[in-house]
This record gives sequence, C-alpha cells and structure tokens, in this order.
Amino acid sequence: MDRRNPRRTLAGRAQCRYNLHLPELRKDPITGRWVIIATDRAKRPSDFIRQPVPPARQTVCPFDYGNEHKTPPEVLAYRNSGNRDEPGWRVRVVPNKFPVLGIEGDLNRQGEGMYDKMNGIGAHEVIIESPDHMATLADLPERQIEEVLSAAKDRVNDLKRDRRFRYIIIFKNHGEAAGASLEHPHSQLIALPVIPKRVLEEVDASLEFYRQKERCIFCDIIRQESASGVRLVTETDRFAVLEPYAPRFPFETWILPKQHASHFEEADAPTLQNLGWVLRTTLRKLNKVLEHPAFNFIVHSAPVQEPFLPHYHWHIEIIPKLTKVAGFEWATGFYINPTPPEESARFLREAGLG
Amino acid sequence: MDRRNPRRTLAGRAQCRYNLHLPELRKDPITGRWVIIATDRAKRPSDFIRQPVPPARQTVCPFDYGNEHKTPPEVLAYRNSGNRDEPGWRVRVVPNKFPVLGIEGDLNRQGEGMYDKMNGIGAHEVIIESPDHMATLADLPERQIEEVLSAAKDRVNDLKRDRRFRYIIIFKNHGEAAGASLEHPHSQLIALPVIPKRVLEEVDASLEFYRQKERCIFCDIIRQESASGVRLVTETDRFAVLEPYAPRFPFETWILPKQHASHFEEADAPTLQNLGWVLRTTLRKLNKVLEHPAFNFIVHSAPVQEPFLPHYHWHIEIIPKLTKVAGFEWATGFYINPTPPEESARFLREAGLG
Repeated sequence: MDRRNPRRTLAGRAQCRYNLHLPELRKDPITGRWVIIATDRAKRPSDFIRQPVPPARQTVCPFDYGNEHKTPPEVLAYRNSGNRDEPGWRVRVVPNKFPVLGIEGDLNRQGEGMYDKMNGIGAHEVIIESPDHMATLADLPERQIEEVLSAAKDRVNDLKRDRRFRYIIIFKNHGEAAGASLEHPHSQLIALPVIPKRVLEEVDASLEFYRQKERCIFCDIIRQESASGVRLVTETDRFAVLEPYAPRFPFETWILPKQHASHFEEADAPTLQNLGWVLRTTLRKLNKVLEHPAFNFIVHSAPVQEPFLPHYHWHIEIIPKLTKVAGFEWATGFYINPTPPEESARFLREAGLG
Repeated sequence: MDRRNPRRTLAGRAQCRYNLHLPELRKDPITGRWVIIATDRAKRPSDFIRQPVPPARQTVCPFDYGNEHKTPPEVLAYRNSGNRDEPGWRVRVVPNKFPVLGIEGDLNRQGEGMYDKMNGIGAHEVIIESPDHMATLADLPERQIEEVLSAAKDRVNDLKRDRRFRYIIIFKNHGEAAGASLEHPHSQLIALPVIPKRVLEEVDASLEFYRQKERCIFCDIIRQESASGVRLVTETDRFAVLEPYAPRFPFETWILPKQHASHFEEADAPTLQNLGWVLRTTLRKLNKVLEHPAFNFIVHSAPVQEPFLPHYHWHIEIIPKLTKVAGFEWATGFYINPTPPEESARFLREAGLG
C-alpha cells in the first residue's frame, strides 16, 4: 500500500469513484483565493494541447557576441575576457531598449479629478542569461544558472539604493505563448515606484497569519508539505519544490527556501549555488513531462525598502502556459484547474532526468 | 480648438512631445490596482496583431434546432412554437454538459491540515443566444439581445432562491483566443457557493468609499466621465459606455447604468431594452475598430443573497483580447497598457456604424 497515493488501494479507488462526481473547491491559505480543482476529469500531461516552444532560430540578435553595441550600454557583466560592451561575458545585464518605465525624472504625483496618477518612473533591465543564442535556461550548466541568479541579486542590491523604487520584480517569459518576444535566453527585472497590489496582498495576509500564530505561513506550508509528501516534487537541504494546495494552473510549481528569509537579494552564495541546481532540475522535469512548454517564472520577494520581515518568505513561482484564461477567471480571480496538484507532483517526481 | 483633445492644439502637441518620454502610472479608483499607460508608444488599433474571429463554420452543433436532445434538458426557453426541448425557441438555457461544478450534494466544508476545502457545488448553465449558428451576439437584433439579457436575469432570479449559492456570474467568451470552445453564439452563467475574492475586493472598496463620502464611487465615476467626455464612448438616458481611467487592457470598455442599482437581476424591462441597444452598439463599434476581435464580457453584480447595496453598482466589463498577459502581469496585478483610454474612446466614438 502506498500511503502517499490512496487511489492505489481498493478503498482509495472507491473513494476516488465517489469523488468523480464532485470537483473540489480549495482555498489558497495565503491569498484567500479559491480555485476549482476539477477532479472528475483530471487531466494527464498528454491531455493538454501543447505547443512546444521551438528551438531558437539563428538570426541576427542584439544579445549575441559582437552585437553589444545594439543594446544600451551594459550595467553589469560577468566576464572571462573583453572590456565593457565587448564579447567575452558569461552573463550580461543591459537596460531594456524599450522600457515600460522611464529611469529619469520626478514621480510628480497628482490627482485628475477623483483619479490618481504619477509619472511612470522605474527601471527595466534585461538579464542576458548566456551568450549562446540557441540555449534555454534549462540547458545551461548549474553554475551558469547560479550566475544568472547572482546577476539578478546584484542588480536588485544596486537598484534598491534608489529610494524612489519600492518594489523590484525579477521574472522570465519563456516562449511566445508566455509573452516572450525575443528567443535569446533572457530574464527581466522591473523596479517600480509603488508596491503592486498583488504583492501587498501576499505580504499583508502573511503578516495577519504571523500576528495570530507567531509563525510564518510559508514555513508552515513547507513543514506540512514536507511531512505529507503528496505535493512535493523534490527537496534539498536548502529548498523545497512543491505543487501548491490550491494552484491556479496545471503544473504550477513553487520553489521555496527552507530557511526563513524575506528578501531574495540577501541570499548567500551557497544558497544561490543550490538554487542553480534546484531551478535547473525543476525546469528539466517540466520540460520532460510537458514537452518543453512555454512558461513564466516570477521571483516573489519582500518590498526592497523593508527590513527583514519575520512573516514574509521569498519564493519562485513557475507557471507553465497550458490553458487559456477566459472570462470567468478574469472576472472573479477564481481559477478552474483541471489537474489536481497531487497528480502533477507525482508526474514531476517520477520524471527521471536520465 | 477641440477641448476634448488638447493634442490637436499647438500647446497640446508640445505637451505631448514632453509626455513622450514618460509613461503614466494610473490607479483604478475602485480596486486600487495600478496600471502603466505607455503613452510614448501609444498604439493605434491597426498596431495590434489581430486575429479576427472567423465566421462560424456550419457543423453539427448541439445548440442548433433539431439537436435539442444533445444537451441536458432546458431550464428556460423563450419560444415562438414547439414544446420543451423542441425547435421553435428564440433563446434557450441549458445546464452545461461538462459543468465545472456539480449541482447535487452538500458543501461538506472541511480542513486538510492547515488548508480549507469544500465540495464543488454550484450551477453552470449555457445561454444559447440564438438558433442561428452563424450569428454573433453583435449581429442579433436589439430585441434578441434584450431577450438574452432577460433570460440571464430570469435564471439568476431562479437560482438565487437556492441559499447555497452566494454569487452568480454571467459572462461570455467570444472567439478561441478568449477561451470559447463552441462557435454557436452563447454566454454562460456560473453559480458559486463562495463570493470570489475579486468581487469581494470591489464590493469592500466601494463600501469604504461610501463610508467616507456617502456616495457610490461608480456614480461619481459616471458623473466625472460624463462631464469631461474624454473617455466616453456613448451615452443614453439609461446607460454610459466608457473607457475606464486605468484600464488593464487596450479598449477595455465598461457599460454602467446611470441610475444607481446594485443587482443586475433587478433591472426592469425598459432598462434591459435600452441595454440591448447599448450592448449591440458597443460590440459593433469594437468590431468595426478592431476588426472582429475575440473578447470576454462579464457582468459585475452584487452578491445575490445581499439586499440592495447603496455602495455597489452593477456594470458590464468588455475586454477585447488584443495583448498577451506575461509574467510581470501575473506576478503583480500590474498591467501594461499600450493604448491610453482617451485614444481608444476617441476611436470608438468616431466609429460610425453606417
């Protein structure tokens, strides 16, 4: 008998047949968001209409060696050789040529009748993850992924000295379906003059939990998931990779540091080294099970001007792009997920990387 | 000089050139959500990569005349002739054959360690808007659209008698990009045993405004927009159609009743009659300017078990599907909109329907 999967027992199977008739409503313990887990028509990975992200085409690309002059001047590079804005770098960070926010100017907060606005001041940078145009993040060696994470950390620590910036988000769009417009492997960083609503919700809700229990809710989740194992994908001394209890999307995957920490940018070198392995392994498992899906990943971290927070816990969310978001989801924030996280966790656990 | 469009004046043009360098951050007065309005590369309708929704193909369809037995038995029909589940109907409502929630059973609320869940009890119905497989909602006569709205109203009033249902949402996905899986014109209705988080946020925020000002925030918006006119698309005695101040998406369009009312399902016949014209006109304007885009519309209404609310104001939100939502938006709820609503309102105002 497999304790982790009651469906494999006879009683489990009967239970399962009963549940076939009713989907489950589950509540995300942090945000309070409900999701519908459609257990009766649980989808296996092969049920999704997938459009694998095709390998990059070798085109003229501003992120390749020799084209450094086609981007704005670099703000950071880890190099083997060469000077600023020359080939020889391993990871290179440049301002986005088409930034969504402008770096220069005053916020000039003002009203417009009953409305509020300010100038769109911020920073928008691109982290070029490798000189290899054809690689994807999951293909890179552990050590290279560690350097990508380290470059992101260094940029956050530099940008946070600008007191206009109250939140800095690190994210990646991989594949056209996930919003990527360039194929060369890269992630992005945006520094914002306000704390986004979704972030505030997460921080405020975890503070409320802390006030009630004197514990971090993310630490509680890690403990419960580590003990039960049903939604666990993989674990190291430093990180837990799991499918959350109330995922919005099939195969939504979270990576959390086991040691409580509120700010990604304060992670030390051994932590980033381990995270290089963990992120690589997780992306490769997703690639194997879902055949190279488009995905977004997002680093959730505490607002940069806040000191260490005992209630907030930084983590990475990975969202493969497998389903379409329709009217119901937009309207309600109520997601319909056809794959129970216990199922997706099992597929990912069992995906050998050979 | 055109007061509504300062860019047409010389001073306006200088102003415009200055603004070119800085996008604007705008705050939605209801939800507090910030958006980036990228004024420097303002997109015109023709700048969007559009995939017009193709005309329906004439296939065997469960929603056509003569196939009534292919759907679950109807729960409502407006008919010219025929009996239940026979041809002769003008509008027909049936339970969804593949409902996301089950109608029978107890909620059976329970914990699972630190998590909360309940059975997925609810109703999921399809409003078949016309027997004409090839029509779209915008093609239908005013009177037919009024009947679609009236059928939705009747179903909500019937379902709300079931006290397990705390929220009922009416929505439409048009076109595959907007999540539609069937081409025959239809909208949907889902009754939920919990009030979704996004709805609660809107209701709570409008209550907070009411407590401060003793006014409905939506009524205030209508007054300001009606007076300024810059974001107004069209107006009747009973409705205002406008582009909101801080839209998440290009050409996001709201339809609001001018007379304060919290519940859609309490709208009287003359109101629905006028709404038939307003909705038809709005959809036809969007079709003209954006060349038949995929879209979602969603009726935002007060929780069904609540009495009349002085602070909440029902309305319809229409979201054409023109852009991709990427990692940044998912993470933050912070949307980047390349089209200022003043621009999209002008395009829609000027779209003659010939």
